[in-house]
Amino acid sequence: MSIVAVGSVAFDTIRTPFGEAKDIVGGSLTYFALAASFFTDVNLVAVVGEDFNEQHLSLFANRRIDLQGLERAPGKTFRWGGEYSINLNSRETLFTELNVFEGFQPKLPASYRKADVVYLGNMHPSLQQSVIEQVESKRLVGMDSMDLWINITPAELRDVISRVDILKIDDSEARQLSGEYNLRRAAAKILEMGPKMLIATRGDHGAMLFDDGIFTAPAYPLDDERDPTGAGDSFAGGFFGYLAQQRTVNEMTLRRAMVYGSVMGSFCVEDFGTRRLERLTWDEIEKRYRDFGSLTSFA
Amino acid sequence: MSIVAVGSVAFDTIRTPFGEAKDIVGGSLTYFALAASFFTDVNLVAVVGEDFNEQHLSLFANRRIDLQGLERAPGKTFRWGGEYSINLNSRETLFTELNVFEGFQPKLPASYRKADVVYLGNMHPSLQQSVIEQVESKRLVGMDSMDLWINITPAELRDVISRVDILKIDDSEARQLSGEYNLRRAAAKILEMGPKMLIATRGDHGAMLFDDGIFTAPAYPLDDERDPTGAGDSFAGGFFGYLAQQRTVNEMTLRRAMVYGSVMGSFCVEDFGTRRLERLTWDEIEKRYRDFGSLTSFA
Repeated sequence: MSIVAVGSVAFDTIRTPFGEAKDIVGGSLTYFALAASFFTDVNLVAVVGEDFNEQHLSLFANRRIDLQGLERAPGKTFRWGGEYSINLNSRETLFTELNVFEGFQPKLPASYRKADVVYLGNMHPSLQQSVIEQVESKRLVGMDSMDLWINITPAELRDVISRVDILKIDDSEARQLSGEYNLRRAAAKILEMGPKMLIATRGDHGAMLFDDGIFTAPAYPLDDERDPTGAGDSFAGGFFGYLAQQRTVNEMTLRRAMVYGSVMGSFCVEDFGTRRLERLTWDEIEKRYRDFGSLTSFA
Repeated sequence: MSIVAVGSVAFDTIRTPFGEAKDIVGGSLTYFALAASFFTDVNLVAVVGEDFNEQHLSLFANRRIDLQGLERAPGKTFRWGGEYSINLNSRETLFTELNVFEGFQPKLPASYRKADVVYLGNMHPSLQQSVIEQVESKRLVGMDSMDLWINITPAELRDVISRVDILKIDDSEARQLSGEYNLRRAAAKILEMGPKMLIATRGDHGAMLFDDGIFTAPAYPLDDERDPTGAGDSFAGGFFGYLAQQRTVNEMTLRRAMVYGSVMGSFCVEDFGTRRLERLTWDEIEKRYRDFGSLTSFA
């Protein structure tokens, strides 16, 4: 069982009240791949520039991550900088330099075209569409998006949404996309757009899965948060990574996937950038999964 | 098993985007008592004015609510008016007329002085203190408070907090009281002040119980919210009402109490003021309790 995942690999500059990191390897797909690789094989499709060297690549080494689909293009790698507020609950983008990501045209290697799970990271809907068209067979397609595409490419976004199984966005994006403030009504409207399921992430309030029913996963109550960058992408990596290794996608595997997603997101914020995911062990994941059981169980 | 509950009974004027209600019977103790009376006998200690007539009293009739401790004083009943924002997520107080509540000195009838559970509603800490001193024996003491007392009577408030078993406040109040933004660290500091447990309510993000461990209850995802007034008090009524009827207070009964609290809070917001609680049935409560199980279960 494997995942084909398409999205951005970048150099991030991050400032939080607890420190600063400059030009570290980030991008939504990096977090997704690191998190998902604990569960399943990840076939990565992305573009980097000439400044992305062997040392940067070593982040992905000795993990279940295939880099055949990682294109190296002339120019510089996508760069992003962001600064968090004192309580980490809001963030300001300091700069965005798309660089090689601007001309990115995802090309799936032949060996990637049969996929169990396809994950379309946050990018222009036309790129997401082109990935769907390149995959010959798939069991499950998930996607992420953001307010930018809701605003500037609403028709193209709706077209992609109509073709996927699972849409993962945050609660404010779900409200914006649906025009409904009430999250339950927002979810109902979004499910009418085509996907079978909506995951609405809610930052440090957890995440909700809407399908025929509703499942709520709390956020793990950390006592030392350092950097929320990549938490949502790590959530997605845990969610889709866990699902990719299951024989069937049913209500129970979906709920467990929500918890594994929450587990991976919670670890991500414990340190800067990808640092916590890099040193994470499977035993820690399993322990925190059990902790989620004790956080929510009352029967 | 019974509860002695002390707090405010008021006439509320409420405006939400969905309508307006003028001079309806409210006040934190009213919601608490209605919710708790589904589970246990509630002995109510409060003051009303001469304008509080038989019709107003009928709200409490034919329920497990004892009104021996409801004092009638010369003057007018406490009046409060508030208006909610378009999405019900913020509220502006339009007016507060303390009236007879200003001179309120809680006096427990002799029959109330042996109590299983004592609930100190939100009021001046010196009044809460005087209630504790009037109770001769008790199994469990819970209290509510608010930002006002954290600001203007911090020492008196801390003194009461040190004498109770369970403090229930909202997450922003917990942050303010502890001086810690991180909720887990805030809880640790508050537990050092004396109480065995902290309940931090989080509006439409649910509620958390901190004791030796942590339990998270989600908010029930309603698709039609009308009026959040009294939701936190209804939560407290469900929580302490359920606990009062249990033989022992242990981790499992506390968790179930958190869910019954969440159930009662969720019903409260479905209609204006106390209307939904007034027509609520035990079958509906039990059904929603089971729904909370299916919202959170993944084992």
